[in-house]
Amino acid sequence: MAAHFTVLKKDPAGARLGRLLTAHGAVETPAFMPVGTQGTVKAVLPRDLQEMGCQILLGNTYHLYLRPGAELIRELGGLHRFMNWDGPILTDSGGYQVFSLGAMRKLSEEGVRFQSHLDGSYHLLTPENVMQIQAALGSDIAMVLDECIPHDADREYVRDSTNRTIRWAERCLRTRDGADQLVFGIIQGGMYADLRERCVREMSSMPFDGFAVGGLGVGEGEELLHSIAASTVGLLPEDRPRYLMGVGRPEDILNAVRRGFDLFDCVLPTRNARNGTLFTSEGKLSIKRAEFVNDSRPLDPACGCYCCRNFSRAYLRHLYMAGEILSSVLNSLHNLYFYHRLMERCREAIRQERVDFWTQGSATLLTQLD
Amino acid sequence: MAAHFTVLKKDPAGARLGRLLTAHGAVETPAFMPVGTQGTVKAVLPRDLQEMGCQILLGNTYHLYLRPGAELIRELGGLHRFMNWDGPILTDSGGYQVFSLGAMRKLSEEGVRFQSHLDGSYHLLTPENVMQIQAALGSDIAMVLDECIPHDADREYVRDSTNRTIRWAERCLRTRDGADQLVFGIIQGGMYADLRERCVREMSSMPFDGFAVGGLGVGEGEELLHSIAASTVGLLPEDRPRYLMGVGRPEDILNAVRRGFDLFDCVLPTRNARNGTLFTSEGKLSIKRAEFVNDSRPLDPACGCYCCRNFSRAYLRHLYMAGEILSSVLNSLHNLYFYHRLMERCREAIRQERVDFWTQGSATLLTQLD
Repeated sequence: MAAHFTVLKKDPAGARLGRLLTAHGAVETPAFMPVGTQGTVKAVLPRDLQEMGCQILLGNTYHLYLRPGAELIRELGGLHRFMNWDGPILTDSGGYQVFSLGAMRKLSEEGVRFQSHLDGSYHLLTPENVMQIQAALGSDIAMVLDECIPHDADREYVRDSTNRTIRWAERCLRTRDGADQLVFGIIQGGMYADLRERCVREMSSMPFDGFAVGGLGVGEGEELLHSIAASTVGLLPEDRPRYLMGVGRPEDILNAVRRGFDLFDCVLPTRNARNGTLFTSEGKLSIKRAEFVNDSRPLDPACGCYCCRNFSRAYLRHLYMAGEILSSVLNSLHNLYFYHRLMERCREAIRQERVDFWTQGSATLLTQLD
Repeated sequence: MAAHFTVLKKDPAGARLGRLLTAHGAVETPAFMPVGTQGTVKAVLPRDLQEMGCQILLGNTYHLYLRPGAELIRELGGLHRFMNWDGPILTDSGGYQVFSLGAMRKLSEEGVRFQSHLDGSYHLLTPENVMQIQAALGSDIAMVLDECIPHDADREYVRDSTNRTIRWAERCLRTRDGADQLVFGIIQGGMYADLRERCVREMSSMPFDGFAVGGLGVGEGEELLHSIAASTVGLLPEDRPRYLMGVGRPEDILNAVRRGFDLFDCVLPTRNARNGTLFTSEGKLSIKRAEFVNDSRPLDPACGCYCCRNFSRAYLRHLYMAGEILSSVLNSLHNLYFYHRLMERCREAIRQERVDFWTQGSATLLTQLD
């Protein structure tokens, strides 16, 4: 077992209950990380994150590097102090955002050159400076720079890209801070089982503190997502945390927890919240629908969040229709509460060896195990 | 003394410490009412309003009548339950908003016909239905329908308008609910001392539960504002609460408290917050200014609000520049906290007969009386 990660229990289906130790405290896994892109989980106060049982946040290196700048954040005492979050923070490498820029970035062995979406200025991310930036931010877990491959990339491209991602990972490790920051490698390999397998083999031979699986949840479809996640997870070292990057529908998370993944992040709960799409124990619900105009019930009668304890669907619909800021605030509180409760239920299911939990579907997620 | 209002103390300058009883509890005066236009104080949770010592909110009849509709709110248990605010609520009559519509409204003896700013539909507000709408909303204090006269209106217009406002006030009283709702009359009269005086005389002879002074703070200038407020307040009945409508700069509030006003409302703290203008014990501050980019100090070192206890100016500037929702949330929390503390200090100054407080200016407002 690695010193920073302990698998406390593994259920017959393969799901793991674990504890991940970081410089800012422990994370009980499986856990969901709300995304705090620009140094804030959109519309949610740190106080409220803490209150809902949030254990760890994700920060976006790309955004913070461009604005307000990593050195500035270091000067101000690091990202934790900057955003007033005392718990663990994982930062991504910025790779995903840069590769999303399309024509505005150019790849080479050295790294990836890109133009800022803010002001068009030119920048270069390399495996080395990505580690330096994350050290400046002072996150608890840093991610290596990887190339996020489109799911429909051809075999030759994926092979070359995956090899480069492996070389970049080695360069990242050579640059690592050495201090308190954990570093996770990222498995790529596109949709090709043998390339993924080779990537896992190479990555696992390096002294990473954890492993992420990247390039999924970006249009490959549910079936392929689940089959690749399932086949990859079995190849990853048992004694280190496994993070399925960016995969975030409740049903996908549930499926991946069952297979043995430990960490998750996604903008889905917060982005959906701002668009009026809310997760409930009875499925998704669009709060703008006319049927809610005079609906005095809480959003989700089975939910205990501040929003559900205090407001009606009619009120939430009104706030949304009126374009009120409080709409984003309350909806985000609710959706994140839902996600944290989901993860809590997953941990409880593993603890109690309730393997039936994994096959019940999301309909009964919130009412089970009470 | 009226049963619902007690002047507990009056200081040598004329400032009053009072207690106003409403169906939803008592309000210690002088008090500031945050504006909750569309059933929400913009960007602030009711929980946080309570925590900062907010005693009473203002709701806008015009906005709520148009969306989601007063009957709908009645069906849902009234405005208090709708927005989850258990304390007192005062509703305005909608008059101010309708008169702000300019060409989109038409005045007659019956009332004022207008087009909705939302969908262009036609509506009529009369003294009678304005009371009925406020009864449906279930506010603790209802305001009569009045005409808000431009500060540069000529004498003849002001005279006719003020007479109509008086006739409308009588019609409002005849329609009053009779139940728990207090009703306040509104003094108009433009910039003409004799017309204001006549208006006060007529209004005071009617059994209103309180009196508001309207038509100030809308461009007449500081000097005229203060002189009219001062001359009007002396004519108002001692035993009923006095509300200076829409006047909201800290220095103007301070001046009016000193003259004997008890209630205030203004969008200034919340609107300024969203625009990045923040009130501090050392004056106003625009958080977007470049000088704050790496300023690790709290917004106002003398302030004890959640925002000042937990975040730096650098962080607040970053949130503002990045267009983050949390910028509006934190700035609104701070500005409203400032206003509530200001009122608390006013009450304390009256209690302690610290008449020097009124002449110190706002610079030392927050550090005094500690």
